[in-house]
Amino acid sequence: MNYPNGKKAAHSQISQSSYSNRGMSLEEDINLTNQYYLDAGRAVIHKKPTPVQIVKVDYPKRSAAVIKEAYFKQASTTDYNGLYRGKYIDFEAKETKNKTSFPLINIHDHQITHMEQVVKHGGICFLIMRFSSHNETYLLEAEKLFPYWYDKLKGGKQSIPYETIKEEGYIVPFQFHKRVDYLAIIDSLYF
Amino acid sequence: MNYPNGKKAAHSQISQSSYSNRGMSLEEDINLTNQYYLDAGRAVIHKKPTPVQIVKVDYPKRSAAVIKEAYFKQASTTDYNGLYRGKYIDFEAKETKNKTSFPLINIHDHQITHMEQVVKHGGICFLIMRFSSHNETYLLEAEKLFPYWYDKLKGGKQSIPYETIKEEGYIVPFQFHKRVDYLAIIDSLYF
Ligand SMILES: [Mg+2]
Ligand SMILES: [Mg+2]
Repeated sequence: MNYPNGKKAAHSQISQSSYSNRGMSLEEDINLTNQYYLDAGRAVIHKKPTPVQIVKVDYPKRSAAVIKEAYFKQASTTDYNGLYRGKYIDFEAKETKNKTSFPLINIHDHQITHMEQVVKHGGICFLIMRFSSHNETYLLEAEKLFPYWYDKLKGGKQSIPYETIKEEGYIVPFQFHKRVDYLAIIDSLYF
Repeated sequence: MNYPNGKKAAHSQISQSSYSNRGMSLEEDINLTNQYYLDAGRAVIHKKPTPVQIVKVDYPKRSAAVIKEAYFKQASTTDYNGLYRGKYIDFEAKETKNKTSFPLINIHDHQITHMEQVVKHGGICFLIMRFSSHNETYLLEAEKLFPYWYDKLKGGKQSIPYETIKEEGYIVPFQFHKRVDYLAIIDSLYF
């Protein structure tokens, strides 16, 4: 998880035991939720693998190939996509510790470009954002995100205030087996 | 490209110059075609990154993180998915040097499971297969692939005869900028 900064991957054995105590990451919660949706026959939505540029691979005899040198690449799309009730669904997940606003620096140019393309071609596209300090998760439609992004590009605010997200977004319910039950909101917004 | 066997990744600098002479792989052709579709505003379809299990990462000062140990993981879905004319589209690409049949060993159990889920949820799902010896590329709908797979599971044939693919599949036209112009076929089959 969270490979782009690599820290969790590198120290996974050390941090594993303390992990359950400090709660799961948004990504882990979404992955579990997607698995639940899949098992329940409700939706087919997967996390895309972290893109990696592979430079050197060893082929030891009688054992698996080992990647010996590789680098993290920037993703050209969002984290998740799939199929729900016959429709294409696509979203990015972001977590912030910030209490008063969601920093737009978390989102990359090409991710917005991709989201614009999805909307243009008739897909369902949104952002799932977690304010970990408030222990709250919100869904914000891509169409509502774009104006804040364009404003930032023109020298405006670098973040969206927490209060704005509360007003314009939708709080995502937590359930034991559906830790980030975003399809409940998608049902009411798009169907 | 073709990271799972890793050879091209490892020797990319050596093979680069001779590469154009021996023609491009199906995957490269599809990637170029998808980029063309994207630039032309026709569809949003991407190759999923090769899934990699990252074990060890170094963080040199003042330079990018280096993955020092990682392993290829089996993909849980197909190679490509995206959005076309408002619909979810999903496919696997496979190439064979075999002249007389397409070996089913190329396809994994969980890929069939994924394709079944896509079909069940109303997505467009198919296989693009290239017979490199014939220099021909075919599209076969997932629904037409499944019976051969189930038959194989019950001890039947391990491959689909080339003549059957010719009859049941659709030859994919080659165009300079759309080297595997599969959307031409999707238009006639699903819209
Ligand atoms: Mg993310
Ligand atoms: Mg493939």
